[in-house]
Amino acid sequence: MKFVVAIDSFKGSASSAELNLAVKKGIQEVMPEANVDMVAIADGGEGTISALQASLGGQLVSVTTLDLLGRTIEATYLLAGEIAIIEVANVVGIDKVAPSPSTISTASTIGLAKLMLDAKTRGVSEIILSLGGSGTSDGGLGLLVGLGAEVTNDPQELSTNRLMGFKNIDLSKMASFSGIKISALADVTNVYAGASGFAEFFGRQKGGDDALLAKQNHLSQEVVRIIRDKYKIDLQAIEGTGAAGGIGGAVAILGGQIEPGFQKIAQLIKLDERLNGSELIITGEGRMDFQTANGKVPYGMAKRAESKRLPIIAFCGALGDDLGMMNEVLLAIYSIQREVVPLDQAMDKQYTLANMQSLAANVFKTRFKN
Amino acid sequence: MKFVVAIDSFKGSASSAELNLAVKKGIQEVMPEANVDMVAIADGGEGTISALQASLGGQLVSVTTLDLLGRTIEATYLLAGEIAIIEVANVVGIDKVAPSPSTISTASTIGLAKLMLDAKTRGVSEIILSLGGSGTSDGGLGLLVGLGAEVTNDPQELSTNRLMGFKNIDLSKMASFSGIKISALADVTNVYAGASGFAEFFGRQKGGDDALLAKQNHLSQEVVRIIRDKYKIDLQAIEGTGAAGGIGGAVAILGGQIEPGFQKIAQLIKLDERLNGSELIITGEGRMDFQTANGKVPYGMAKRAESKRLPIIAFCGALGDDLGMMNEVLLAIYSIQREVVPLDQAMDKQYTLANMQSLAANVFKTRFKN
Repeated sequence: MKFVVAIDSFKGSASSAELNLAVKKGIQEVMPEANVDMVAIADGGEGTISALQASLGGQLVSVTTLDLLGRTIEATYLLAGEIAIIEVANVVGIDKVAPSPSTISTASTIGLAKLMLDAKTRGVSEIILSLGGSGTSDGGLGLLVGLGAEVTNDPQELSTNRLMGFKNIDLSKMASFSGIKISALADVTNVYAGASGFAEFFGRQKGGDDALLAKQNHLSQEVVRIIRDKYKIDLQAIEGTGAAGGIGGAVAILGGQIEPGFQKIAQLIKLDERLNGSELIITGEGRMDFQTANGKVPYGMAKRAESKRLPIIAFCGALGDDLGMMNEVLLAIYSIQREVVPLDQAMDKQYTLANMQSLAANVFKTRFKN
Repeated sequence: MKFVVAIDSFKGSASSAELNLAVKKGIQEVMPEANVDMVAIADGGEGTISALQASLGGQLVSVTTLDLLGRTIEATYLLAGEIAIIEVANVVGIDKVAPSPSTISTASTIGLAKLMLDAKTRGVSEIILSLGGSGTSDGGLGLLVGLGAEVTNDPQELSTNRLMGFKNIDLSKMASFSGIKISALADVTNVYAGASGFAEFFGRQKGGDDALLAKQNHLSQEVVRIIRDKYKIDLQAIEGTGAAGGIGGAVAILGGQIEPGFQKIAQLIKLDERLNGSELIITGEGRMDFQTANGKVPYGMAKRAESKRLPIIAFCGALGDDLGMMNEVLLAIYSIQREVVPLDQAMDKQYTLANMQSLAANVFKTRFKN
């Protein structure tokens, strides 16, 4: 019997590949002859590069650049054949800062440009930006400046965050990516400005206060107006331009596409072919709740399974009370938790993997044994 | 399809009947036509009366007596046909005291006698004492005194605990229970005195310190010697005489039998008949670990299921790392925990029942649906 295991990483605990392996071990405790295909998976957030590398191979390319606060770092991207995959969080990740009004008003995406330019020099045909986990709220202007765009700012407000005091933008000297497909992976559809824009909707979790976010929102509307007037691109009409503090908008300005992360990754790793002939599919993510149905891995997997009429079960680390429609698209959902333990123990990698293996064995006994 | 659900109470959280009903609801979410037989169950500890009443019917009889510290209480026992069932913890339960050297050296089982005598006047043919949860360590001498035995104590050490300063015992004036079967339910096989006796083995959790327990152990050996010499009963040769602070010994002196609680209860509620024809059995207890195989409900249920070659799955509130042989006798084991929560939330009755219902639905979908 063939089984497919494709669990998203449990953030801060274990990777997709590690969790898949734990499930495989659990299955093989029960069915030693089972054919278990482990599919490293992600939805465009943390773990995208490692999930894609597991299927596509390729090599990690290291580039010296600046992080979101302007500190020199070595950042890597994946070069797999003619495709470059950049996780923006590797350069401008929120995990690199303690979010505050100071970080959000200075953090810049400029360091991302170096990775895109490096990929261009290597002759890639596609650059994929995985947008999850950014700590910036600069409307993607830093990235554009890094690529040669000229942004004019109010000299009274000059900041490394080029959205602050934004006056004008000129793209005429920006590097060209003609012939190179640019794709951004996002699991949100927010547009650039306004109540659901990057400032008002996501700025608080990045350290912004009311006054600062109102100002950033106002400035983002100026960007929208000028880009519309000068370049005929309506950032308010394109879903996802508000992702990653507006990096989605920069991608749209560069002529790229913003896509749901899971769909794109599924296509790249030929997920559909791998699911064929599977007796049961196992998926999961760290926490499952009402947000899971917004394009997270278990939802994407469930829709694929549904189209093939294959049963699918999810394993998670935390199971919220409100699972939205997940109960309808999954055959069953289990938490790996065994008893009341402190959060740090529950997050421990070895504990998590041991619980995952044990749960998998029990579920496979329940389904396939007497 | 027929299913049997027989889960032990989750101590401090939910009763056997409540947990069974939650599972039934979960099953019927998935299989509305399922025939679910809910069997209230216990192993001789907390919940024995309510489990037996669910199957046997009968009425609760209230008796005014003394608790283990000599305070007047109303205690109830179950009168079901010609059988009386007494939970000793209702009279001498450790939950009624804050265990200390003072409580263990004064606590007496004398109040139990009134319930036995009341049952006798009602013409019962059997008295069952459920021994779990006692807070006493008097060797059962209080109970015997309450029934008319004469115990002589050192006047220097006179205590309400008649083991303290024990000198001699005379049973000649004790009430007769001839024609009445006396059974005690215990899940331990400890004998009366010595390293595994009631004082040394169980006395610490009842508040005893080294010196006191050594003294109680010495006195319990005196009881053994005198009972052996005068009445030809060897308390050291009968398993379970050390249960419940020596109440097991008193039962042996009364000519009663000490039995594993689960077996006796299973027989009383005709468990075997109810399991016949079941597609799957669900059992469980609050915490499952290496102690579960010592005659707890899930172990007892698993052995019954095994003899009938029926699959059985356990649900619990806390799943230890070391499950002893339980993984071999059960098809599968699940915890109802969903995520990291504080202990008081995990113990909350409504939370527990909701999690139980949800888990049951998921397990039945896993086993019976595509």
